[in-house]
Amino acid sequence: MAHDRESAEDKLIARFFKPLATHPGALGLTDDAAFITPPPGHDVVLKTDAIVGGVHFFPNDDAGMVARKALRVNLSDLAAKGAKPLGFLVSLALPKQTNAKWLTAFARGLKADAEAYECPLFGGDTDRTPGPVTISVATFGLVPEGTMVRRAGAQAGDAVFVTGTIGDAALGLRLRDKSSKRWKLPASQKKHLATRYLLPQPRNALAEVVRAHASAAMDISDGLAGDFAKLCRVSKVAADVDVTKVPLSDAARAALKADAKLIEPILTGGDDYEIICTVPTAKVASFYAAAQVAGVPVAEIGRIKAGEGARFLQNGKLLKFKRASFSHF
Amino acid sequence: MAHDRESAEDKLIARFFKPLATHPGALGLTDDAAFITPPPGHDVVLKTDAIVGGVHFFPNDDAGMVARKALRVNLSDLAAKGAKPLGFLVSLALPKQTNAKWLTAFARGLKADAEAYECPLFGGDTDRTPGPVTISVATFGLVPEGTMVRRAGAQAGDAVFVTGTIGDAALGLRLRDKSSKRWKLPASQKKHLATRYLLPQPRNALAEVVRAHASAAMDISDGLAGDFAKLCRVSKVAADVDVTKVPLSDAARAALKADAKLIEPILTGGDDYEIICTVPTAKVASFYAAAQVAGVPVAEIGRIKAGEGARFLQNGKLLKFKRASFSHF
Repeated sequence: MAHDRESAEDKLIARFFKPLATHPGALGLTDDAAFITPPPGHDVVLKTDAIVGGVHFFPNDDAGMVARKALRVNLSDLAAKGAKPLGFLVSLALPKQTNAKWLTAFARGLKADAEAYECPLFGGDTDRTPGPVTISVATFGLVPEGTMVRRAGAQAGDAVFVTGTIGDAALGLRLRDKSSKRWKLPASQKKHLATRYLLPQPRNALAEVVRAHASAAMDISDGLAGDFAKLCRVSKVAADVDVTKVPLSDAARAALKADAKLIEPILTGGDDYEIICTVPTAKVASFYAAAQVAGVPVAEIGRIKAGEGARFLQNGKLLKFKRASFSHF
Repeated sequence: MAHDRESAEDKLIARFFKPLATHPGALGLTDDAAFITPPPGHDVVLKTDAIVGGVHFFPNDDAGMVARKALRVNLSDLAAKGAKPLGFLVSLALPKQTNAKWLTAFARGLKADAEAYECPLFGGDTDRTPGPVTISVATFGLVPEGTMVRRAGAQAGDAVFVTGTIGDAALGLRLRDKSSKRWKLPASQKKHLATRYLLPQPRNALAEVVRAHASAAMDISDGLAGDFAKLCRVSKVAADVDVTKVPLSDAARAALKADAKLIEPILTGGDDYEIICTVPTAKVASFYAAAQVAGVPVAEIGRIKAGEGARFLQNGKLLKFKRASFSHF
């Protein structure tokens, strides 16, 4: 017998994932590995982030949305680092009951975002698991040599900016809780919050602007308060954030009006996938203008100071949080 | 309150994984991402592979061994592609009951191999999972531009080589089965087979030799018969393998003597992590010599022919297998 039959795993890859492997270095997913030829004078930015069923998404979430979330949480990091997406690897652990319908939707969602963000698939791995669907993505991006924007680099006097609106995803998650009924939100606002949880909108449109202007940056994935505290710690600076300047969506504003205590999940909840960055005062005007051209809303929320620790002030009063950021451990 | 406390997740990373992040581009794991500056004229080779508790290793396997296996299955691919390891990302999903003792052993094993293979940690992600320990590694390697050794490229007339010995890991796995008692192997041979399953020995010492001599190559992770069939299919060639020339360890030879049917798991079982490559006849002598200098045993097992399909012949008789290679699906 000639052993030239493709295995079921090979067929699965050819059927569902080969259409995403558009880069010549991916070799159509017919090899053990892929390769990229980085343009001279550039650094390759590396990032990995995984999402786990029952932890980062619900088992009955739409498979296409799950795929897009898995890729987008990584794209968000590339954006904050000022990097242009190059491509990604995906490692997929699937329970036995995963069917072709789920895989079709998953691959379709992944393909849509691979195209939208110009981030093709370079390779992957599929395994069985007795546990939940687990999707680990590793992304690669490009920056001119030595220009990756870091968490370290914020200087006293720098303005602190965030993109978009904060807290929507944390409230979107709480919508699944009965207590959210007393927010009395209209259906459209509920949908806004739920969608923000379900599907991050990474700010890759701002990557180049961040790279050209920011002294430090990171994406907000574990809550504004905790993530910004990390940036200040690594930059060895302090900061005052004016909580009233933190940009909120209409829905978040309405919920907060119904329950003032929601300021805590808004500022410390995870899954915003906005960018927080610090910009030297001399570059602030240019940053505003460039962000507008890029179509990404930005808001100044505070200032970097000498010292240690990020403080959140609401009408001059220091806010205390039970937990500054999301942590799995 | 100043939000400058490190989260438990940050502490876990600083305690267990920062010591592995020796490359300056890893930024001591204090950033969202890492970066590499590829040397000019080189390609970056990309690979991801995951291992799952209860699927690729046993839940009570030593955590250090599990860590090393997770890295080595990826290093093996870099070796077969002729690439020098640059570094890796690791994404770790851990059940709630994972304790510091497990993590300490895991990190120690990972560090030992990161050092041994000069493949430092660039970054990672840790998550909780309701499922088993799941470890997804993405590795990066370097080759001079355009020289990654592919599955495609084997030509009629090329000699077919494998490194080391074949089938040990598949037999090592079967040792856990009662039926293996009738092999009547001495303890030392049992240990040899069990170790070969537990801890792959990737052939990174041969990477440069493969790159300089092979027309096509891949690592054998899903069984010699099936993996070589893939190489032939992508190369669009046929091949005859002389099964009597396939190198076996003393332990495998003894087991096979006790049960001739074991030839099937030997040739089709997974987890060898040896390299199969094809070498043009003009380069065979130089390949032998270079492999000897590298200290890696190699054996010629067959020839590439025009046509389609890899055939396995035992004393002139065509072998048939139930399943040519391991597949999760």
